[in-house]
Amino acid sequence: MNAILPVDLSQTCFQEGFWYRRFKLVKEVILPYQWRVLNDPEISHAVQNLKIAAGETTGSFKGRPFQDSDVAKWLEAASYVLALERDPKVEEMSNEAVRLFLKVQREDGYLDTYFIINGLEKRWTNLRDMHELYVAGHFIEAAIAYFKATGDRKVLDAACKLANCIERTFGPENEKLKGYDGHPEIELALVKLYRCVKNERYLHLARFFVEERGKKPHFFDEEARLRGEEEPYGPWGGKFTYEYCQAHVPVREQRKAVGHAVRAMYLYCAMADLAVELGDRELADVCQALWKNVTQCQMYLTGGLGSSAFGEAFTFDYDLPNDTAYAEVCASIGLIFWAHRMLSLDLHSKYADVMERALYNSVLSGMSLKGTEYFYTTPLEVWPEACKHRYDRKHILPSRQRWFTCACCPPNLSRLIASLLQYVYSITSDGIWTHLYVSSKAEIKLLNRNINIYQETSYPWEGSVKITVEPFEPLEFNLCLRIPEWCKQYKVEVESDKDKTYRAEMRQGYLCIKKLWYPNDLVRLVLVMPVERIRANPLLRAAAGRVALQRGPLVFCLEEVDNGPLLPDVVLPKESCLEAEFDKDLLGGVVVISGEAKRSIFFPDEPLYTSEAHPFRSFRFKAVPYFAWGNRGSGEMLVWIREV
Amino acid sequence: MNAILPVDLSQTCFQEGFWYRRFKLVKEVILPYQWRVLNDPEISHAVQNLKIAAGETTGSFKGRPFQDSDVAKWLEAASYVLALERDPKVEEMSNEAVRLFLKVQREDGYLDTYFIINGLEKRWTNLRDMHELYVAGHFIEAAIAYFKATGDRKVLDAACKLANCIERTFGPENEKLKGYDGHPEIELALVKLYRCVKNERYLHLARFFVEERGKKPHFFDEEARLRGEEEPYGPWGGKFTYEYCQAHVPVREQRKAVGHAVRAMYLYCAMADLAVELGDRELADVCQALWKNVTQCQMYLTGGLGSSAFGEAFTFDYDLPNDTAYAEVCASIGLIFWAHRMLSLDLHSKYADVMERALYNSVLSGMSLKGTEYFYTTPLEVWPEACKHRYDRKHILPSRQRWFTCACCPPNLSRLIASLLQYVYSITSDGIWTHLYVSSKAEIKLLNRNINIYQETSYPWEGSVKITVEPFEPLEFNLCLRIPEWCKQYKVEVESDKDKTYRAEMRQGYLCIKKLWYPNDLVRLVLVMPVERIRANPLLRAAAGRVALQRGPLVFCLEEVDNGPLLPDVVLPKESCLEAEFDKDLLGGVVVISGEAKRSIFFPDEPLYTSEAHPFRSFRFKAVPYFAWGNRGSGEMLVWIREV
Repeated sequence: MNAILPVDLSQTCFQEGFWYRRFKLVKEVILPYQWRVLNDPEISHAVQNLKIAAGETTGSFKGRPFQDSDVAKWLEAASYVLALERDPKVEEMSNEAVRLFLKVQREDGYLDTYFIINGLEKRWTNLRDMHELYVAGHFIEAAIAYFKATGDRKVLDAACKLANCIERTFGPENEKLKGYDGHPEIELALVKLYRCVKNERYLHLARFFVEERGKKPHFFDEEARLRGEEEPYGPWGGKFTYEYCQAHVPVREQRKAVGHAVRAMYLYCAMADLAVELGDRELADVCQALWKNVTQCQMYLTGGLGSSAFGEAFTFDYDLPNDTAYAEVCASIGLIFWAHRMLSLDLHSKYADVMERALYNSVLSGMSLKGTEYFYTTPLEVWPEACKHRYDRKHILPSRQRWFTCACCPPNLSRLIASLLQYVYSITSDGIWTHLYVSSKAEIKLLNRNINIYQETSYPWEGSVKITVEPFEPLEFNLCLRIPEWCKQYKVEVESDKDKTYRAEMRQGYLCIKKLWYPNDLVRLVLVMPVERIRANPLLRAAAGRVALQRGPLVFCLEEVDNGPLLPDVVLPKESCLEAEFDKDLLGGVVVISGEAKRSIFFPDEPLYTSEAHPFRSFRFKAVPYFAWGNRGSGEMLVWIREV
Repeated sequence: MNAILPVDLSQTCFQEGFWYRRFKLVKEVILPYQWRVLNDPEISHAVQNLKIAAGETTGSFKGRPFQDSDVAKWLEAASYVLALERDPKVEEMSNEAVRLFLKVQREDGYLDTYFIINGLEKRWTNLRDMHELYVAGHFIEAAIAYFKATGDRKVLDAACKLANCIERTFGPENEKLKGYDGHPEIELALVKLYRCVKNERYLHLARFFVEERGKKPHFFDEEARLRGEEEPYGPWGGKFTYEYCQAHVPVREQRKAVGHAVRAMYLYCAMADLAVELGDRELADVCQALWKNVTQCQMYLTGGLGSSAFGEAFTFDYDLPNDTAYAEVCASIGLIFWAHRMLSLDLHSKYADVMERALYNSVLSGMSLKGTEYFYTTPLEVWPEACKHRYDRKHILPSRQRWFTCACCPPNLSRLIASLLQYVYSITSDGIWTHLYVSSKAEIKLLNRNINIYQETSYPWEGSVKITVEPFEPLEFNLCLRIPEWCKQYKVEVESDKDKTYRAEMRQGYLCIKKLWYPNDLVRLVLVMPVERIRANPLLRAAAGRVALQRGPLVFCLEEVDNGPLLPDVVLPKESCLEAEFDKDLLGGVVVISGEAKRSIFFPDEPLYTSEAHPFRSFRFKAVPYFAWGNRGSGEMLVWIREV
């Protein structure tokens, strides 16, 4: 297999545009806000746990057993920011986080405040529930990011020390535990660490954890027996199932996504990583089968995953209800992580298409435009009254929250946005593959030469992208541009002062432009971006007779604030013209879709049921990007609109 | 207020037809089957509890605290059967039930096996949860029915003894408890007892319980404090709310139905009874406001009530989801009880319309055609796969069960069907009001004269009813025939050998035919019964863009066994002709509706989302009466069909 390499974040920087605005928000608003919350003993208590474990203060551990991971993910996000732009405030906060983690770490490398505070004798006795290796994985990811951003090895050394501690405890050797974590994460972190420090033991340990999962007799049964427990209980007081943590069968036998969606994504990431690193064709096939199942049978139009609140889980094929959807933000973030890894395994635009879908829709909806309020779930239909009164919708909060008891999503959003530029390109031996269109600069090493690539674009509002290629000296290679699945018509123009000749061919969803590139050669790509009515596979019952509006990568929705209440009553005639217009004053500047729709005329005292047909009236509806919903107070929202 | 009196069951009998078939099923199959189950210590244990409490065997109480009520409701049903037809088998079983109840009853009148077995010192200490007065109420109802059927006073005396025991314990006097039961039932039972034995103290006690409800400080708080409890917990581990048992405010301040739907129905029954007996205009207004709210804002098309599984409860106006509906069978039975009482308060066909709707649809769906399998919930859409995998649909069982841990519904069905003839007529000073069309005979006393009335009809399959009037001697009165809300066109012919002149006028939904009636005078009523497409108020989101098929009082549904899977994909064109035909070989003989509908054509490997419109094909659909669904194995079911 030829290597398909991602671009390192340090080789990139943003240019003014959609994503730089959000990057700056992360740097200037979100990181300071989240750090404040993490430091607040009343809200998060996460930093307080570190201080207690470091002996700097007294008190008891508070929060979820995995509370440390909130700080680690925050530190990882801060490190990505620092990799792109120095910032004294972010540096100062990061250094404090680093200082605390290092002080907390035990002599043997162990690092988990829950067990350090509550008694180390209990460590490694409940892998199923306690997230110990999950917490370790997030620290390792943060350490790598911090090292890459600052060049400072001390946290990376601490991560290796922790990984060594884990390796002394777990593994195939007789005296070691044959366990794995209930929540995957350590596996992908160990592969990352292997790639960073080139120590193959970490790769082997990652493989061990992945291969051990789901083997019988079940490790979790064994450790529960040792704890003297009879009946394992799972989420919401239900019975624990191995499906919940993807340990129902060994991973090589898995073909359908089951269980907790975030756990699934993190596991699949590691599986894809291992398939790449080990050239493991069988594991690659499993990844592809799972990819097909997830994206063709269990994914919301917005890139949301996990349609059931119970277990925050996948259910079964085509079960994607709109108003009871769970679709945790972290699951969609995990989907992006996984898609990115699949691109290194099998360079095909279908992975980048899904990456883009999740990014611009469910993921981005996870935070308010101000950056300091968050959704945990990403439903496709919201009726606030039902969320208030119906127990089966109590997980759907109709407005974003300042924080959560289980606060995985907010720092996950920070680290994704701060590191977005690493998702833009892949490099192969003969070309540069463009997955995302983002105003940015990247310094790419290809055929041992340096090439700068600039993108200028108003994406996702407009489909035109100007790509300037600046090889250090003239160089022949493929510049491959993803033609998104949503794009039915595109135009490409190559401009060059020196030589305009080029060959273009479609390869796996990418338009590959092969030429001898001179400095300042230019490609103008226009992806025609009309408003599309999207229809679901008829097997997806929740969308029967409905269309969703999409323009470019953006899914749109109706909001009560623009359209009045009772959105399920709205009908979009097949023949209605749909217009898209940029409104710079709305929601920080968004494209708005409008057109003629119909809705019921009401009369006083209408009966509940009647054989009379109800009269309709026309009105002009207004749809806004899904990601921006819920920024103007609580109200109804609807993605799938009835069509007649 | 002029008296509006129901007909006593003893004045009636069935003739061959739809309901006599079901009555015979109750007598010959259901009562023996249910008695067997009640006697089975492994399944119900209810009779076993009686035997233990009677000292005939040893063991501990098993089942719900209200397990006794299953036997009481069964005995009530058996008594209704005996009121109409002698049957040695039913008599034998009933006598055994009676013998046990009498033996269990304590010297002071107390009668509840849970507390007799577990310790009488705990009685009356947890009215909120333990259903003590609820159990008492059901025994009283059974006793009255048994007395009326057999003339045997001993059980009625026991009921009075129990009521006296309750009256010594509860009441406005200083030394008595100011409590009421978490589950209403005693109130309506005490009114019944008052009517039977004419002891006004029972009426006053019923009034006390009703008026006390919801007063502050809350009795349930007080008794919880005395038990030393801190936090009251309600259903499914949620926090207990006073709404759950309609004690959030005093009943006179209630205008919207809230909480547990069965509790609400039983309470409203007592309120209507009291309004009638006391001529209480204010209470009558409350009943009417609640009636409007329930039937115009919170009732399923099938007469189902309580759209939330959590708390088996009402939620809020127009929240009537199809696939997560709870709509307990007992709630619809309670709705019939309430409607019947409203007819004595305010003689208007709207109450009988709802009575008929609930009876022929949700209630009757509660049991299999064989009579020995039962539904607890009555959803309007079922996807068995989702019931299996989705926690939020775990209350929806896609096939009827032989019994339940909480077995309130099966004996409730028995007592309703066995006593159905008491719902057919009301008598006023100047007429006979016909609410239901059932092949039957009734001996009615009007103006101190006896009149026999015969109905012959194939209702609900056909809308023609032949009513023969047989006054002992010629007599002038109104024969009032309900013109159902579903009926847009009807014909009436009066035949008489003596005198054909009559005056007809519509009064409150009834066609009142005034004439001097001679023996063997005849009315031929034809209610034209086309297939109707029913539409919901647009505020009912779950039915937006959909129609339900109704013919006469019957709501129809699609079943997978007739139409294949994926029913939400089925579309009914507006112009489709709908045909109704009786199929004597299907489901014991039912009318079937058929017509042209459309559904998606499938292609291999279709994407989950696409901008392409999906092609449809025509097919001939087949709809069966909702009550008969689920008698041919597990499969999908759908009431509200998409219309284009």
